[in-house]
Amino acid sequence: MFGELKIFSGRANPELTKAICATTGVMPGAVDIMKFSNENIKVAFKESVRGKDVYLIQPSCAPVNEGLMELLIMINAAKHASAGRITAVTPYFPYVRSDKKDEPRIAITAKLVADLIQTAGADRIMTMNLHSAQIQGFFDIPCDHLLAGKILCDAATRFDTTNGVVVAPDAGSAKHAGHYARRLNLPLAILDKRRSDDSEAPSMENIIGEVEGKKAFIFDDEVASGGSLIEAAEMLEKKGATEIIAFCVHGVLSGNARERIEQSCIKKLVVTDTVCIPQEKRHEKLEIVSVAELFGKAITYTNAGRSISGLYSKY
Amino acid sequence: MFGELKIFSGRANPELTKAICATTGVMPGAVDIMKFSNENIKVAFKESVRGKDVYLIQPSCAPVNEGLMELLIMINAAKHASAGRITAVTPYFPYVRSDKKDEPRIAITAKLVADLIQTAGADRIMTMNLHSAQIQGFFDIPCDHLLAGKILCDAATRFDTTNGVVVAPDAGSAKHAGHYARRLNLPLAILDKRRSDDSEAPSMENIIGEVEGKKAFIFDDEVASGGSLIEAAEMLEKKGATEIIAFCVHGVLSGNARERIEQSCIKKLVVTDTVCIPQEKRHEKLEIVSVAELFGKAITYTNAGRSISGLYSKY
Amino acid sequence: MFGELKIFSGRANPELTKAICATTGVMPGAVDIMKFSNENIKVAFKESVRGKDVYLIQPSCAPVNEGLMELLIMINAAKHASAGRITAVTPYFPYVRSDKKDEPRIAITAKLVADLIQTAGADRIMTMNLHSAQIQGFFDIPCDHLLAGKILCDAATRFDTTNGVVVAPDAGSAKHAGHYARRLNLPLAILDKRRSDDSEAPSMENIIGEVEGKKAFIFDDEVASGGSLIEAAEMLEKKGATEIIAFCVHGVLSGNARERIEQSCIKKLVVTDTVCIPQEKRHEKLEIVSVAELFGKAITYTNAGRSISGLYSKY
Amino acid sequence: MFGELKIFSGRANPELTKAICATTGVMPGAVDIMKFSNENIKVAFKESVRGKDVYLIQPSCAPVNEGLMELLIMINAAKHASAGRITAVTPYFPYVRSDKKDEPRIAITAKLVADLIQTAGADRIMTMNLHSAQIQGFFDIPCDHLLAGKILCDAATRFDTTNGVVVAPDAGSAKHAGHYARRLNLPLAILDKRRSDDSEAPSMENIIGEVEGKKAFIFDDEVASGGSLIEAAEMLEKKGATEIIAFCVHGVLSGNARERIEQSCIKKLVVTDTVCIPQEKRHEKLEIVSVAELFGKAITYTNAGRSISGLYSKY
Amino acid sequence: MFGELKIFSGRANPELTKAICATTGVMPGAVDIMKFSNENIKVAFKESVRGKDVYLIQPSCAPVNEGLMELLIMINAAKHASAGRITAVTPYFPYVRSDKKDEPRIAITAKLVADLIQTAGADRIMTMNLHSAQIQGFFDIPCDHLLAGKILCDAATRFDTTNGVVVAPDAGSAKHAGHYARRLNLPLAILDKRRSDDSEAPSMENIIGEVEGKKAFIFDDEVASGGSLIEAAEMLEKKGATEIIAFCVHGVLSGNARERIEQSCIKKLVVTDTVCIPQEKRHEKLEIVSVAELFGKAITYTNAGRSISGLYSKY
Amino acid sequence: MFGELKIFSGRANPELTKAICATTGVMPGAVDIMKFSNENIKVAFKESVRGKDVYLIQPSCAPVNEGLMELLIMINAAKHASAGRITAVTPYFPYVRSDKKDEPRIAITAKLVADLIQTAGADRIMTMNLHSAQIQGFFDIPCDHLLAGKILCDAATRFDTTNGVVVAPDAGSAKHAGHYARRLNLPLAILDKRRSDDSEAPSMENIIGEVEGKKAFIFDDEVASGGSLIEAAEMLEKKGATEIIAFCVHGVLSGNARERIEQSCIKKLVVTDTVCIPQEKRHEKLEIVSVAELFGKAITYTNAGRSISGLYSKY
Repeated sequence: MFGELKIFSGRANPELTKAICATTGVMPGAVDIMKFSNENIKVAFKESVRGKDVYLIQPSCAPVNEGLMELLIMINAAKHASAGRITAVTPYFPYVRSDKKDEPRIAITAKLVADLIQTAGADRIMTMNLHSAQIQGFFDIPCDHLLAGKILCDAATRFDTTNGVVVAPDAGSAKHAGHYARRLNLPLAILDKRRSDDSEAPSMENIIGEVEGKKAFIFDDEVASGGSLIEAAEMLEKKGATEIIAFCVHGVLSGNARERIEQSCIKKLVVTDTVCIPQEKRHEKLEIVSVAELFGKAITYTNAGRSISGLYSKY
Repeated sequence: MFGELKIFSGRANPELTKAICATTGVMPGAVDIMKFSNENIKVAFKESVRGKDVYLIQPSCAPVNEGLMELLIMINAAKHASAGRITAVTPYFPYVRSDKKDEPRIAITAKLVADLIQTAGADRIMTMNLHSAQIQGFFDIPCDHLLAGKILCDAATRFDTTNGVVVAPDAGSAKHAGHYARRLNLPLAILDKRRSDDSEAPSMENIIGEVEGKKAFIFDDEVASGGSLIEAAEMLEKKGATEIIAFCVHGVLSGNARERIEQSCIKKLVVTDTVCIPQEKRHEKLEIVSVAELFGKAITYTNAGRSISGLYSKY
Repeated sequence: MFGELKIFSGRANPELTKAICATTGVMPGAVDIMKFSNENIKVAFKESVRGKDVYLIQPSCAPVNEGLMELLIMINAAKHASAGRITAVTPYFPYVRSDKKDEPRIAITAKLVADLIQTAGADRIMTMNLHSAQIQGFFDIPCDHLLAGKILCDAATRFDTTNGVVVAPDAGSAKHAGHYARRLNLPLAILDKRRSDDSEAPSMENIIGEVEGKKAFIFDDEVASGGSLIEAAEMLEKKGATEIIAFCVHGVLSGNARERIEQSCIKKLVVTDTVCIPQEKRHEKLEIVSVAELFGKAITYTNAGRSISGLYSKY
Repeated sequence: MFGELKIFSGRANPELTKAICATTGVMPGAVDIMKFSNENIKVAFKESVRGKDVYLIQPSCAPVNEGLMELLIMINAAKHASAGRITAVTPYFPYVRSDKKDEPRIAITAKLVADLIQTAGADRIMTMNLHSAQIQGFFDIPCDHLLAGKILCDAATRFDTTNGVVVAPDAGSAKHAGHYARRLNLPLAILDKRRSDDSEAPSMENIIGEVEGKKAFIFDDEVASGGSLIEAAEMLEKKGATEIIAFCVHGVLSGNARERIEQSCIKKLVVTDTVCIPQEKRHEKLEIVSVAELFGKAITYTNAGRSISGLYSKY
Repeated sequence: MFGELKIFSGRANPELTKAICATTGVMPGAVDIMKFSNENIKVAFKESVRGKDVYLIQPSCAPVNEGLMELLIMINAAKHASAGRITAVTPYFPYVRSDKKDEPRIAITAKLVADLIQTAGADRIMTMNLHSAQIQGFFDIPCDHLLAGKILCDAATRFDTTNGVVVAPDAGSAKHAGHYARRLNLPLAILDKRRSDDSEAPSMENIIGEVEGKKAFIFDDEVASGGSLIEAAEMLEKKGATEIIAFCVHGVLSGNARERIEQSCIKKLVVTDTVCIPQEKRHEKLEIVSVAELFGKAITYTNAGRSISGLYSKY
Repeated sequence: MFGELKIFSGRANPELTKAICATTGVMPGAVDIMKFSNENIKVAFKESVRGKDVYLIQPSCAPVNEGLMELLIMINAAKHASAGRITAVTPYFPYVRSDKKDEPRIAITAKLVADLIQTAGADRIMTMNLHSAQIQGFFDIPCDHLLAGKILCDAATRFDTTNGVVVAPDAGSAKHAGHYARRLNLPLAILDKRRSDDSEAPSMENIIGEVEGKKAFIFDDEVASGGSLIEAAEMLEKKGATEIIAFCVHGVLSGNARERIEQSCIKKLVVTDTVCIPQEKRHEKLEIVSVAELFGKAITYTNAGRSISGLYSKY
């Protein structure tokens, strides 16, 4: 109905593409992507996409801006090559945290990115755990918003959750953490970070809820430099948490995140494979769970015109 | 620079328009709005808008859908009458709570409304306390998002805040409540509402943070039927709060909200005048603070090409 | 070719939907439409529309503006739920009489409505007897414009047309009335309403053509409050018409139309079921003929990719 | 406010441009328009239009399609030369009679033309006596729709209107003719042309209203080949009209219209100068009244940001 | 997959359509195209196009502007008749030489034409040998750009190429001529036309490369009036070329091109049939090679969703 | 007329911005641009742009894709901060060489970039020496295309041009080189590079025109890795050119271009400062001429609404 299924990978996370393809039984399509000496990217599909149902897999990974431009060029090349339908698959959406205008004269860059993807020629978008659910409203094309809630909770239950508490690392993530707490049937605690007016130094004053003598399960949508996460962990340790395990959907792990986390009081950090994590960033404390099967199903269902609402979890 | 300033009022909240105009020194413009026997609305501007800088004030008030359609017709009439620039001023934005797709096959209606307003011909939007800041990203036109934070905090400080606690009525509003707590220098508590899986009945289990023996200041962006607010107040009372005062930006007060609030344990409910509150909905417990001066300044500054960032508060 | 046929009904005229579905052999699709206490409408399709050929039936019925907003939300929800093709079926088109700018600074609201429907995401429109044929030009999407001419003429011939005259109630409807006159092989007469310059009071001076001693068949596209129709009937009676029968495609019947028509000199008023006519508006003089079969055919033909030009009559 | 006023003429009707410019006190701007041997048109403005308020005057005159393409190129050249505001002035709008879809699989070409003009880059349109007022709704940009009613009525009153009757040449123009009748305080008659079903030959059977012994004033929006007009005149003569004078806004006068009209029973044909009427098409019976002053005022008012509603007549 | 294949011809080059249809096995579809006395064009498809895969063949032929308008109307009529997919087939693209802005305040009319075609409703474009390859970038819809390189080279090899030289008639066509030289394995020469600063008279000073005693094969994308071509030929003759044969993709042959070429030193002029060449323009020296088979394949492949990259030659 | 002039610099070439500002007498505006640890760019204007005439200077410099994304974010931030008019100033346009589709299933990325810039919110573009003039047609907004022809010719005449020859490094640049040859009144020669069919190795066979014993002035629009330029120089040396001087508008100088050029037979390479050339890439053979004054004038003229056609040279 929507043409033959074709999956192509940008250079951002080819491992994830392979894993997704493995679950769908479709081989990744042939595409040449190269960078000239002047840094200009060239994309050439090496097989026909005419009338095909094309999925272009490119999460936001380092180098971020180059990866985004590469995605836009891929979409545009597919469009002018007469693809039947083009779905941009961005398991980790570029600039997802720039989703509001909280100071004067800045851009809501996540909205800009959504516009650019549509301008390039995408017919649909498929993504995962947007920083805020409202970002779906940034699109004028259908957006399939997958959620890793079940995957992370399954990972959490593999640890012993007895005497556990779900912790939101800040007030803004209280809602999402609440979903996890309900699913795991654990109480909820929230860190209330405040900074004094005349200083940039963090002065986290308070934890709302009980954590003393409890095993803390921190949940967040992404971990970048790891700074806030470690700050939260240290505070939990000081307040008497017995063990600290963190779950973040998108493992950005930028800068020296690896070292900082290894040396921190965090016992384990669980992330998914939406973002490419090269070997040198992996270590003992890091556990990676895969979203490939979920994306694989979403793609094959969408190609077949089947509803994917059954695949949705709530967070 | 942007043409002569003209302010017109729809039929939604003419009192607010009058109050805004009073602060600007500009008389409301002449416009005839009528409804035919077949319910079709007709808008006719009775003075020239050619090249003028036109502000159309129409918050979302009952009847909501008619008011929205009226706004769209006003915008369109002004556009085809060659207005120089059209700003839709919607202090309470229509369908603001429908800002995400949290179940299958529903619309993100706030985004649809943003699209409709742009289709009708608005060049800019001016609004207040959107349910989520991300809604600003729904617009392709500049959006001035005013915030009532300072106005509500000023109202709060007129009460005695000694031994007070700021309460977020649910996890989703923890972030906003946190802003108020910081400004008022009060601790924060969060209600953690949960519903058992096999029942629709609310089973609020928990308050995260300390409320016993404290004066509770609940903050939320709007109060509609009052149901959640009263539920929260009752729980606070049960947990030992000594006094409960609520602050909500938009006083929708639908259904029998007046009666329910009057009979509740809420001591005082403070709302702004973004939504029209007819005389019969007013009562002892209700205090209305005005946003007219803030909107008046934002309009005159915008007309003069002056920055309005100085008018912004943070929540 | 266009995906499985799915027909959904808004809340405007579910009886018409049922009648249309009956002729197509397709059951109305499951959709939940509700109104919150704050008057916000929520639409949730309860079955998959992914890749389906979706028809959303919602004529303009009271409450008009709410019904229109509901239609827009339905379209938008279907679009973001990845419907294959969306046809807005509005047998009576909203604001159809606001089709020109005949005084300064008003909107051509029918055009605005067309734009809104397209912005919401409709791929096609199907409608009936637009006030003027030019309204088709308001759409950038294909518009199937069905005409009730044959249905009304069949109704007319069930009366005895001997010694009859077709009457246009004003000069603007002379063209349409002419079509009916030709089909029924009757002469034509036209009412020439004039109002004196310094008064709003109607001063109908003249009937152009012969009506004395004849049976008058008035034809018009809609009857709203019934005012003009009764005015015309009274004039015809005064000029010696022996019997007055009126045929109007859209039976809006707003205000106290029922009472006025019952008490008037009109012997019979024939309307179609495009607009929902609740039981309390029905009476002896009112005859309702159905357009369901015609719409049913147009829908099934369109779904099958068959030409519907065979279904068209000329007026 | 809108930049310096600049008026440029296409090659369609330079005389009209000169007349309009004369009333505005602005010289026509310098523009080179040429046609290569391959029939491609080239437009080069010979003076700066950067930031100017540009009016491009090009009514639809023979050769029609070339003139339209020329207008589109002029608009586009002005846009890319950074004109401040571009108004397409088409006193006679191209394809104005193709305003509805009255048989299957044809275009509503007047709508297409409106879209093309907007695509080319026009910000506004100024035109006169559209075949139907609904065509205004074809534009998404402001459209100033001037009407020649007062000009033609003034011409009519220069004849003796005693014992006159206003005649609509067919049912479709009854409404407009009615306006003239009211203004001239004359009765109205309507020609009811019918063709038998099995023949293309005209069989005009009837005149509705009284014409015998009266002076007939036919009013129509345009005269092309003159066929219908002469057909009407002959019928009026047969029915006893004493004198026949015709008033048509747009004097297209295509084919051998000149000869046919000269030889007909029409005593005088009054047209405006919206369409260019070359010397060889002029004759004794033809009277041309000018719309230049009206357009001149509309242009200078628009440039100054003044309302032009005072210039409107009703038909 | 894309609906039934339907090919319709405008009035520009019906012979080419017939030839294309012959290679596809599909009969040209029935369409009525007429011109009223007022020069307005009317297009009516006489068979259903609903859901069909429609190809509209209309190269730019005299009368150029009328032909373009006709194409736009055809596209628009097909769109509103619910065609499934519309491909505008313009073997010779209108205004293709107006592809840059090389003097102030002119339009890039080829871009304007691309925009107009998209506004009218085309989903795809199929064309041949655009004056510059960059013109493909003027389209937001997929553009199949066929090239006649192989066809012209095949024609060239039918002449004896021994001791030949490929000649570019000016520096701007050096690149394309180079492609031909490589394919034919011949050296390249370039005419370097210069005009003195104070005179419009041509003063061709130089031929870069060797032509004396050689057989010159001039290659260009089009021949219009033939002026430049003959100028080049005369120069080549003067410099000692033994024989001059010219190959131009598009045989526009405007003005008195036939006579000039017949009387020139050009021995043979080879063109394709993209442009209609009426019998009176044909003569001994003119050879026409057909592109019908190439277009026929491109159309049938596109309809079948097959890749057409195999059909491409490089120039 | 267009608001106060404001010039802001991205991080690509702040030196050029400074130089441009120096010629305009306007200080660069305050803007904070930073990159988070996750590589996301944040742009915050530190002064009001409301209603201002904003110029954002960002040529394509390394890192290219990051610089482009930064430009898009700047534009978008300015738009939502209500800038009056936004001009993207890209002296070297990103992806300018990707201007055609010369193999299957690739993007015309220069067109995509043009679309992205417009989507982000630019009102105008100002750029220099596009690889092909047709790229101007990629924009729907006005594009001021400045040319460095005069600047480079002035540089050339500072060398002794006696016995010189202008050389085009390949057939594709013959046209531009011809312009320079005419201006400098020198003959023209063209390198005809060919590669054998079965090998990727370059096999430059031929120089068309005379170079022996002459001083060769190579002209091209850009120099990236320097490969083609050096290849050309070596061939010229082999064919007896006495001295080789190269002039390229855009000095991209990617990879080890510095070393290669230093060690080559090129005596001098003249480039402009459109692209940022860091100190470590500068050397004896490199001469940089500035375009700042030309851009400065174009910006001040545009702000004042003055024609800039006087600033244009022809190449």
